[in-house]
Amino acid sequence: MSILPTYSDVLAAAERIRPFVHRTPIFTSGTLDALAGRALVFKGELFQKSGSFKYRGATNAVQKLGHTEAKRGVVTHSSGNHGQALALAARTRGIPATIVMPANASSVKAAAIAGYGANIVESGPSLADREAMVAEIRERSGAAFIPPFDHPDVIAGQGTAALELLQDADGIEALIAPIGGGGLISGWALAAKGCNHAIRIFGGEPTGASAAAQSLATGERVQLASTLSIADGLLANYVGLQTWPIIRANVERVLTVTEADIVKAMRLVWERMKLVIEPSAAVGVAVALSDEFRALPGLGKVGIVLCGGNVTLDKLYW
Amino acid sequence: MSILPTYSDVLAAAERIRPFVHRTPIFTSGTLDALAGRALVFKGELFQKSGSFKYRGATNAVQKLGHTEAKRGVVTHSSGNHGQALALAARTRGIPATIVMPANASSVKAAAIAGYGANIVESGPSLADREAMVAEIRERSGAAFIPPFDHPDVIAGQGTAALELLQDADGIEALIAPIGGGGLISGWALAAKGCNHAIRIFGGEPTGASAAAQSLATGERVQLASTLSIADGLLANYVGLQTWPIIRANVERVLTVTEADIVKAMRLVWERMKLVIEPSAAVGVAVALSDEFRALPGLGKVGIVLCGGNVTLDKLYW
Repeated sequence: MSILPTYSDVLAAAERIRPFVHRTPIFTSGTLDALAGRALVFKGELFQKSGSFKYRGATNAVQKLGHTEAKRGVVTHSSGNHGQALALAARTRGIPATIVMPANASSVKAAAIAGYGANIVESGPSLADREAMVAEIRERSGAAFIPPFDHPDVIAGQGTAALELLQDADGIEALIAPIGGGGLISGWALAAKGCNHAIRIFGGEPTGASAAAQSLATGERVQLASTLSIADGLLANYVGLQTWPIIRANVERVLTVTEADIVKAMRLVWERMKLVIEPSAAVGVAVALSDEFRALPGLGKVGIVLCGGNVTLDKLYW
Repeated sequence: MSILPTYSDVLAAAERIRPFVHRTPIFTSGTLDALAGRALVFKGELFQKSGSFKYRGATNAVQKLGHTEAKRGVVTHSSGNHGQALALAARTRGIPATIVMPANASSVKAAAIAGYGANIVESGPSLADREAMVAEIRERSGAAFIPPFDHPDVIAGQGTAALELLQDADGIEALIAPIGGGGLISGWALAAKGCNHAIRIFGGEPTGASAAAQSLATGERVQLASTLSIADGLLANYVGLQTWPIIRANVERVLTVTEADIVKAMRLVWERMKLVIEPSAAVGVAVALSDEFRALPGLGKVGIVLCGGNVTLDKLYW
């Protein structure tokens, strides 16, 4: 069993990945502040390389590999942002990457991953199919498996964005991060609690993919039979084995938001902040605008991660 | 006749408006650089207050008014970004603003202007109708008329964004700005030539609203009978009396782009740069990506103003 990452791992990750990642800008909006009833500071990870925060964790994991290990390449299964991030992180180090995707995955995403020079291998549609294919590739090539969230180097890498936010904005009393498998919020919790233990951590999930909310409510790591949401980056059936203890220890509450809340928040950010965020990023915004969060006392200034901007522009969302 | 603004007026404007405007960020994109065949630096005026660069010129004009004059308020005719900008600039100074709009103007824009606390007065649809209404209001209230582009304080204010860009990015050899009435490019030309006379200035216009291109080509200030483009901020039938001599003296060439070029550039910036720019802002990007501009020798690094982000999200543009 792996040892859980800590605040020091986040600090080490920040040093390690600094030459490779963008220090993304922060944003504020008087309109959003008025709607939320408090000051909000947005961390613009939609401007991160590959279009999402996932590039931080992937880069940390890839750069940490030893020379011999790295030469054998990396492999993962992901049709989404982690696949793009790992492909680009591997190309940056000059090592091969193989991304296992279900045959029915979107051709746009496959094209983006191929554009970063990765090998794409098709698998059957189930998680078991994908895991079997990853195992086969590892056996054949010796490639290192870099999973999308349940890995200490990935978690530590994701936390580096929170360090930057807390350096760039004073007086933040709480953070809101969306939760899929929990890699982002785990990294953010480690980073924030390490900087200042008083900072409160809140999660956001779609009502149709609320594994973390249900796990925190029951105290047990819940596995969902199915998930459904426009927030395609958050469709995890469970939080990770490594992210779960970090979430349980540090996250005060996970608030769920409806599809309508997500779409409304997304449009608001596009329209008023001029930022093309993806639905998963809108989940954190929707939490801040919810009656439940607005009713919390205190919390004069809250940080929110706009986690990515990879969204198809072929359709309207509203 | 007014005296034309100069570089010193731009410097004075920068001092005057600094407490009121955002110093907007600059952006770069490897994808766009590859498509343009050179390094591009984008000035993010879509993040300016009121959603466009127009707030700079409006603020400079409003803040420069004497105390007694200011108390009588300001008036303009504009159903677009200048109307919003002037409304907000007046509110910031605590003086009344009246915006004359044709009765058939979009209700969304009217709502935005009303949201900034301005009085909206309806007029007939023609320019003559609007000018007559402005004259009537000036007579009645003594309000100062702040036109959208043909005013030395407005021109000088628009130039302040170019000063910032040239401070924040080294080695810029040329600038591209879209042209409607010419306020933006006039200010940018004064600012850039004042900083470094070797910087070359290029304009961009839609083929359906190319008064400046035709004026430069013929050497005479051309008046168009009609204009048509998705780039609604650039639908001027002529460049201004004050902007024309500045354009003639400083702008090397005005390139025209088609509606398809504009839409393609706009989608590219939304998709790859995650920035919600309006069609008028896409015109400058489309110029940079055009075969004609790509074929120009030299020009290793080019600055482009993303002039605004006020766009309806009720429809797709592609």
